[in-house]
Amino acid sequence: MDSAPTHDHEKNRLPHVVVLGGGFGGLWATRALATAPVRISLVDRTNHHLFQPLLYQVATAGLSAPDIAAPLRHILRRQRNATVYMDEVRSIDVAARRVALAGGGLDYDFLLVATGATHAYFGHDDWAAHAPGLKTLEDALGIRSRVLSAFEAAERENDPLQREAWLNFVVIGGGPTGVELAGTLAEIARHTLPREFRHADVRDARIHLVEAGPRLLASMPEDLSEKTRQQLQRLGVQVHTGDAVTAIDEEGVVLAGSRLASRTVLWAAGVAASPLGGQLGLATDRAGRVQVAADLSLPGHPEVFVVGDLASVSQDGKPVPGVAPAAKQMGAHAAGVIRDRLRGAPGKPFRYRDYGNLATIGRMAAVVHFGRLKLSGLLAWWFWLVAHLFFLIGFRNRIIVLTNWAWSYWTYQRHARIIVGKPPAGGGNAKKNGPGGAVS
Amino acid sequence: MDSAPTHDHEKNRLPHVVVLGGGFGGLWATRALATAPVRISLVDRTNHHLFQPLLYQVATAGLSAPDIAAPLRHILRRQRNATVYMDEVRSIDVAARRVALAGGGLDYDFLLVATGATHAYFGHDDWAAHAPGLKTLEDALGIRSRVLSAFEAAERENDPLQREAWLNFVVIGGGPTGVELAGTLAEIARHTLPREFRHADVRDARIHLVEAGPRLLASMPEDLSEKTRQQLQRLGVQVHTGDAVTAIDEEGVVLAGSRLASRTVLWAAGVAASPLGGQLGLATDRAGRVQVAADLSLPGHPEVFVVGDLASVSQDGKPVPGVAPAAKQMGAHAAGVIRDRLRGAPGKPFRYRDYGNLATIGRMAAVVHFGRLKLSGLLAWWFWLVAHLFFLIGFRNRIIVLTNWAWSYWTYQRHARIIVGKPPAGGGNAKKNGPGGAVS
Repeated sequence: MDSAPTHDHEKNRLPHVVVLGGGFGGLWATRALATAPVRISLVDRTNHHLFQPLLYQVATAGLSAPDIAAPLRHILRRQRNATVYMDEVRSIDVAARRVALAGGGLDYDFLLVATGATHAYFGHDDWAAHAPGLKTLEDALGIRSRVLSAFEAAERENDPLQREAWLNFVVIGGGPTGVELAGTLAEIARHTLPREFRHADVRDARIHLVEAGPRLLASMPEDLSEKTRQQLQRLGVQVHTGDAVTAIDEEGVVLAGSRLASRTVLWAAGVAASPLGGQLGLATDRAGRVQVAADLSLPGHPEVFVVGDLASVSQDGKPVPGVAPAAKQMGAHAAGVIRDRLRGAPGKPFRYRDYGNLATIGRMAAVVHFGRLKLSGLLAWWFWLVAHLFFLIGFRNRIIVLTNWAWSYWTYQRHARIIVGKPPAGGGNAKKNGPGGAVS
Repeated sequence: MDSAPTHDHEKNRLPHVVVLGGGFGGLWATRALATAPVRISLVDRTNHHLFQPLLYQVATAGLSAPDIAAPLRHILRRQRNATVYMDEVRSIDVAARRVALAGGGLDYDFLLVATGATHAYFGHDDWAAHAPGLKTLEDALGIRSRVLSAFEAAERENDPLQREAWLNFVVIGGGPTGVELAGTLAEIARHTLPREFRHADVRDARIHLVEAGPRLLASMPEDLSEKTRQQLQRLGVQVHTGDAVTAIDEEGVVLAGSRLASRTVLWAAGVAASPLGGQLGLATDRAGRVQVAADLSLPGHPEVFVVGDLASVSQDGKPVPGVAPAAKQMGAHAAGVIRDRLRGAPGKPFRYRDYGNLATIGRMAAVVHFGRLKLSGLLAWWFWLVAHLFFLIGFRNRIIVLTNWAWSYWTYQRHARIIVGKPPAGGGNAKKNGPGGAVS
């Protein structure tokens, strides 16, 4: 594979930067090298950059998948020194400076690894089948099918206990994703669906949010955690803090020692770094994150950088959080160090600038913490909305997402309530005929 | 399963109409019974009504799946005598007046079967894996992934012959779906993608449209078939009429005796009625369609009706075509006959009113045949656009679809270019390293 445009052989002599991962870290690094004297190969196993902060909206049928994703090669179409490959990374050989891909190999002068994080089940890998996590578009579409199919199954079901299990939803993990999912599910059960069902009273649906730690949104100040709990309870969510789930199976969960029947359990609790980190042959922390030097390069390999959720970076004794702004800053910083190296200058140490923290809870409810500014409720929700629209890539996407939100806001409808693909296991088990035999 | 709302036991004594299929036939029948003294159970294996005339737009990344689909229970939320079940039909027992579903059973007083059509490969079922057809949202999303992945594979590929195979697209079948797919693929290769690839020159892509019969759009007047051919050729499509494909495999097709290397073959040639028709124990035609009486009921079973693509209906010596307006008219007619039967009146014979025929070809090109009116080109395209927006269900969908079209029209961009799910087989086979060995 020759990474240079065929019409410009001059560029063949430029140093080759290989970027693995087209998320916030990899894409921001690539963009920051637009005018650098390098050629860049950006490799991602999908064809798109995903705006992960709105992924829960796809999982809850508020947005379509294409609303929050854009093809990487479209985003980078004008950056002539960047070539995009949709391919999977098989292994990294840091000694030979070579990446093996499913479809071939790439030799590099600089490597930037930004493959992010995935779900972690804390040693309970068998939970994955019953409690899907939310990291990719596939995850989001799978959760959408599961949630919508649960309401459909409840409508078919005659047995009241079974129907209750279909209408019990358990969200595990009280971080931003768990809070967003629980709040939105409550909104769907209370406002979106009720008039459309004839047998199941979907207002009976129970949304449980389970957090093993003492409070929700642990990265927020305590008073905002408490506001979050209050706003969720107002939406009808049952919040369990300090309670751990000790078992998950097809029938439900064991929570604080007692069984809760539920056919829909969602996992928003654990995150582990992409397994690629281990291949770099270096120290990783408990979550699989790679310990990097102050300038984000690998110790002993100044030509290799790790950024985003895959990097373990501490600052002032605290870990830099696994959020989009941190990944973007790391990507841009690593790009700067590559420019420095090309000039023979030493790389500067990375400093994370924390602009603040915000999380949405549900319809017109959110919490915001920006420096000394703390907001909750409707004002925070507007703040959240504007911030997210501002950062969403692509002018068209912003218009469409805003239109969809305005529509949902006024009608309580969620336009993407489409089940695609096979409904998850269990959907066909509902017994139509009660103990009395045939009905009509 | 008791199909009556639990809060209204009065309705339990009303005759029970079971409708199988929520397409144009089933949904229009259900709506036409809104004020009839019956209770209706509408069963569909998906949760949505699909606006099939725009399905090719999802397959070619112009629209998102939720843009052209709406949940059946949302459409019918105000029709209190209708209950929607997402379930699969296992069998029909016309003697016992009972339908077996995956999740139970339904006894009926009237049955309306509207389960439509699927692809047919004329005895070559092994072709299905290599040449997917386009009937459901899953089909459309699968084709979208295949088409987009082919361009991605071409970008990774070093071998010129292999690259050519990735950039050759073969559409089999010169009816409306084949014409739409071929025209849109040509538009994508010529206008949407070129600037975004660095190695593959996607303007080299060849779109072949193959029709075994003598002309495209056989249901149109001959001069419009010729206009269609001309407009497609102007878009860059290579039109083969009178040529049959005799083999399809992973490497391509055999067309008119010679091999054409192509990694992306799409099937728009054959349609067969849903296999459910055979279960009614009655005569079916070659395509599996059920021969019905003049009032659309089953001979010998005045309480069972078959409508839409599953019904074989002739009028003035010609078969009624398998198009949306015919299905809607049949659904509404069967509902009328049920009302007649309830009053003890005989059912009237069905008459198909042919309002005309239209097909789109690509950007600003279409053909229209309405009575004595014949249009082609830009004017026909506007006619087509307005007609389709008018018939699209849901005010919101119309706005979003119009916005997407306006956007595509001005920018040539297609917003849904997102590959979700595993790329199809073959995507990982491209050899990155040419005969020369490692590259960088």
